Amino acid sequence: MIRINENYLKLKASYLFVDIAKKVEEFQKSNPDMDIVKLGIGDVTLPLPSACVQAMKKAMDEMTSVETFRGYGPEQGYEFLRERIAKNDYQDKGIDISAEEIFVSDGAKCDTGNFQEILAGDVQVALPDPVYPVYLDTNVMAGRAGELEGERFNNIVYLESTRENNFVPDLPSEPVDVIYLCYPNNPTGATIDKQGLKKWVDYARENNALILYDSAYEAFVQDPEIPRSIYEVEGAREVAVEFRSFSKTAGFTGVRCAYTVVPKDCVAYTSQGDTYSLHKLWSRRQGTKFNGVAYHVQRGAEAVYTSEGSEQVNELLNYYLGNASLMKKEMENMGYECVGGVNSPYIWIYGGKSSWEFFDLLLNKAGIVCTPGIGFGKCGEQFIRLSAFNSRENVEKAMSRIREYF
Amino acid sequence: MIRINENYLKLKASYLFVDIAKKVEEFQKSNPDMDIVKLGIGDVTLPLPSACVQAMKKAMDEMTSVETFRGYGPEQGYEFLRERIAKNDYQDKGIDISAEEIFVSDGAKCDTGNFQEILAGDVQVALPDPVYPVYLDTNVMAGRAGELEGERFNNIVYLESTRENNFVPDLPSEPVDVIYLCYPNNPTGATIDKQGLKKWVDYARENNALILYDSAYEAFVQDPEIPRSIYEVEGAREVAVEFRSFSKTAGFTGVRCAYTVVPKDCVAYTSQGDTYSLHKLWSRRQGTKFNGVAYHVQRGAEAVYTSEGSEQVNELLNYYLGNASLMKKEMENMGYECVGGVNSPYIWIYGGKSSWEFFDLLLNKAGIVCTPGIGFGKCGEQFIRLSAFNSRENVEKAMSRIREYF
Repeated sequence: MIRINENYLKLKASYLFVDIAKKVEEFQKSNPDMDIVKLGIGDVTLPLPSACVQAMKKAMDEMTSVETFRGYGPEQGYEFLRERIAKNDYQDKGIDISAEEIFVSDGAKCDTGNFQEILAGDVQVALPDPVYPVYLDTNVMAGRAGELEGERFNNIVYLESTRENNFVPDLPSEPVDVIYLCYPNNPTGATIDKQGLKKWVDYARENNALILYDSAYEAFVQDPEIPRSIYEVEGAREVAVEFRSFSKTAGFTGVRCAYTVVPKDCVAYTSQGDTYSLHKLWSRRQGTKFNGVAYHVQRGAEAVYTSEGSEQVNELLNYYLGNASLMKKEMENMGYECVGGVNSPYIWIYGGKSSWEFFDLLLNKAGIVCTPGIGFGKCGEQFIRLSAFNSRENVEKAMSRIREYF
Repeated sequence: MIRINENYLKLKASYLFVDIAKKVEEFQKSNPDMDIVKLGIGDVTLPLPSACVQAMKKAMDEMTSVETFRGYGPEQGYEFLRERIAKNDYQDKGIDISAEEIFVSDGAKCDTGNFQEILAGDVQVALPDPVYPVYLDTNVMAGRAGELEGERFNNIVYLESTRENNFVPDLPSEPVDVIYLCYPNNPTGATIDKQGLKKWVDYARENNALILYDSAYEAFVQDPEIPRSIYEVEGAREVAVEFRSFSKTAGFTGVRCAYTVVPKDCVAYTSQGDTYSLHKLWSRRQGTKFNGVAYHVQRGAEAVYTSEGSEQVNELLNYYLGNASLMKKEMENMGYECVGGVNSPYIWIYGGKSSWEFFDLLLNKAGIVCTPGIGFGKCGEQFIRLSAFNSRENVEKAMSRIREYF
């Protein structure tokens, strides 16, 4: 008899965005003339950089001729892109990462979701709260989370990010094997300084733990004191894997290109205590289950590193950062406590009331959609997330409405 | 201590294509003037259909304007493509499959590799021999294969495809829960008739088993009597999932678009014996671990179904089928026993000697690269696979050399 993976039955039904959509629909029905501003979802809105589009079209033309046609590419990604990433994103910044250590993929969601596959089924997982739901859900599916007791799984160590610790959790008091970290953070927009990050790297080194570092929002970091890569911390090569994406950087959410860095020094252990290369394991995983990213998309990503491309990317980033800064200023002027909004496209706003209550107020009074913080975990209660991925006009409209009604 | 998934250590080292490359390199070194013809790899060589390229470029232009820009798409695929697939590939042929049952993805390799994730860890797996290695390797990684004893894993039921059974295996004599089937077959090129397929569907229905049906080569089927979809068999909706791809159909190996059909009636069971929808589970899996296929790529795939696109696709298919037919005729004229070569781009040739011996002969005498059958499993010994994915000129050159030397 064919049986299902029953771990899936333990997943919390993910009704957050469904519930939001329902509330928005109802509100729109009773207020048909209201022009609702959606600041909930973390999806980019500005067009693709033209340098990327040109490069993709050129590559596509190569596919129309038998001499330049390309079929299956290397699963790990074309060398031209991996070399460019290693040089521009790491080596030029004094970070020791080589092209061989880069794995190009179709998304950081896939990579952060899939990476746990190469780890033992019973390693102890530590997850921030609030958190991007993919880290938790993929570990639930793999059977590592245990049972749901109230709001939390009994085999997960939750790392609480709160006002008290400035949204950078303390080291766990019990031993953990794999730690998910994300800075600039989704959903809080908080950043971590080098010393703060060093504590985690040191912890991982002392405890033979692994850090899965989601750095999808690094391009928004403007402050030179804030690390953009975990490999800026000495010793991180041995204990950390880093996930990055062209999605938020170059507006590639609808194009799909990302990469994961697995340093050759990064090891895990067999049950006998022998070290084993995670680079080798991830390579085997990707070679078996993945067929690489489209050639023309990789050419598009390569164009991000040209002078024209990087200029266009900076324009995008500055536009969204301008939105974030405006929202932060306005909300703070109205007396709200905010995190993020600098070095990050997200603003995490303390409402002093339940997340959903705050959500309903914003929607019903001002026609603005946010994301209730509770959707990201228990510690998200009393917060909402605003996203800077929108037009300046919409952001200004939203702020003026909030000023008016609150 | 962070520990690895030790099932990976049980994987057979996949040296097949490395060993082939080494032998080819050595031969080229000692024969620098020899123009080697590579008929080993199953990768397309002809340019993309221009209808697809035009559609992709047009979609890319939409991404350059804020009004028509698209970010994250639906994880399951855009409705415009799923509607087209359901109508053209199924409904117009009298097969009951709806757009909601289609899941668009970036590859049949990913989908056939990932689907086992939603099944229990201890279901009994049945695999053909010879076989596409991804089915086995992904089950080894998941811990379902048991231990390697000699050439085979002790928890896998092997379904032998041999000259004796015309390369369609007999039903298993022991109960199995999940059965991988692939027709037209990779590597043998064999096809299955409707009655043969019905036996498997009936078996699955009687035994509450699931069939994972890889139909990546269906577009090569010319004979109207040969089923292109498992859903041509009555009752298959309840027990079969079908994997298809634009890779071999429209030359998309470097573009990446495929789809998986999970009918809403298709169920598996909980350990309590309750039925559970596989559609719901796969939807949750994809929603959590996948971010959808690029918008413009889905527009490119949609163009396959226009009259211009389907004409161009037919040209590609006929070209490769012409190669296959030529090779089959020539090899049979030289007295070789062949399977495939009609309704399939692969020809499976019985050499009466070890696969590697046959490989060495072809390379050293005629400068031709094939794939030794043993690389696909124990039952592949004494066979080689030739692929029709090449230029007519190369195929003719290869055949004339074989005629000359053998």
